[in-house]
Amino acid sequence: MENEATASAVEEPGARSRRRGRRPADEVRGDVLRTVGELLLGEGIADLTFERVARLSGVSKTTLYKWWPSRGALALDGYFHAVQETLAFPDTGDIRADLLDQLHAFVHLMTGTPGGRILAELIGESQTDKDLATAYRTLYSSGRRALAGERLTRAQEQGQLRDDVDVQVVVDQLWGAVYHRLLIPDEPITDSFVEALVGNLLGGIATR
Amino acid sequence: MENEATASAVEEPGARSRRRGRRPADEVRGDVLRTVGELLLGEGIADLTFERVARLSGVSKTTLYKWWPSRGALALDGYFHAVQETLAFPDTGDIRADLLDQLHAFVHLMTGTPGGRILAELIGESQTDKDLATAYRTLYSSGRRALAGERLTRAQEQGQLRDDVDVQVVVDQLWGAVYHRLLIPDEPITDSFVEALVGNLLGGIATR
Repeated sequence: MENEATASAVEEPGARSRRRGRRPADEVRGDVLRTVGELLLGEGIADLTFERVARLSGVSKTTLYKWWPSRGALALDGYFHAVQETLAFPDTGDIRADLLDQLHAFVHLMTGTPGGRILAELIGESQTDKDLATAYRTLYSSGRRALAGERLTRAQEQGQLRDDVDVQVVVDQLWGAVYHRLLIPDEPITDSFVEALVGNLLGGIATR
Repeated sequence: MENEATASAVEEPGARSRRRGRRPADEVRGDVLRTVGELLLGEGIADLTFERVARLSGVSKTTLYKWWPSRGALALDGYFHAVQETLAFPDTGDIRADLLDQLHAFVHLMTGTPGGRILAELIGESQTDKDLATAYRTLYSSGRRALAGERLTRAQEQGQLRDDVDVQVVVDQLWGAVYHRLLIPDEPITDSFVEALVGNLLGGIATR
């Protein structure tokens, strides 16, 4: 793969084609993902094509297709990497504050950038496209679930969340609840919605 | 509309075309919705066409199109009416038991009948089809939200749920959480999932 990546960078002159010599595949891959991420968060998914990514990253379409078998896979991998920092799970030792922080950042990404439309369209398409559904889970959602689960498990270890709680159910009741409003927009996604989600779930909604 | 409905029943011989005379539009409408509902829950959405519904219900395609401008609208209206009874919100005075009952029925409909696939595909398509998105909300989801909200509000009046809880957020944290697993199936939709959803939300997940 390293040879191919190097060869293609020479074959197809592009933004990064001036760099000669063998570049490790991981570095080339990282360049592509950065290019895709910038494109997605800047413009959305409509104009994302293998052609354009090849031109912008200086990597051949053949190599791109070898690494990402479909446009959806390329988009999801690029998106995951682009939002990783924004959606990092802080650990200040206060799970309520950390969840609020992370969810506010997530909601801002969903409503204030093309991020929400990108995910909504990919989830939508994946209902009838099995390959895209698999790509969505392997390249995006299962990774996000794992990261959330790690932070929630640490909160259990720190004695802030009950031990008997299945942290993956919590993922559905916080981030899943936001996706519900994203995909079926009967009600708005606001900061006060985030606060209600966290407040309801941490403290419970039943009277005592 | 009554005239058209009657005329068409004569024009297009079908299962119910033997009934002569003027039938009220509401009755004809109800017949169509029943036909659509039976078809959807029996077979799924793939073979739902205006042609077939016209033949089975004995109502002209012209009349059908007048009442339901698209296949999606027809499907959603038929589905809403077909599941209304199954998804009724019981009121035994015990909100925990009633939520468990309703959510178990809902989850059974999503996983044990074509209901889940029907909604998933319609939600999926509605991400890029604005008319279908509007139909989804007006003919299905906003009505379901209203019914859930009524039951939850009664539980607040009965002193079982906190007064300061926004019941529409609860909808996202129970039914929305199920939709999340339906649309992005990283984790399974099971009876124990339902119990965890209700347990987490009513009692809270934070340690005291």
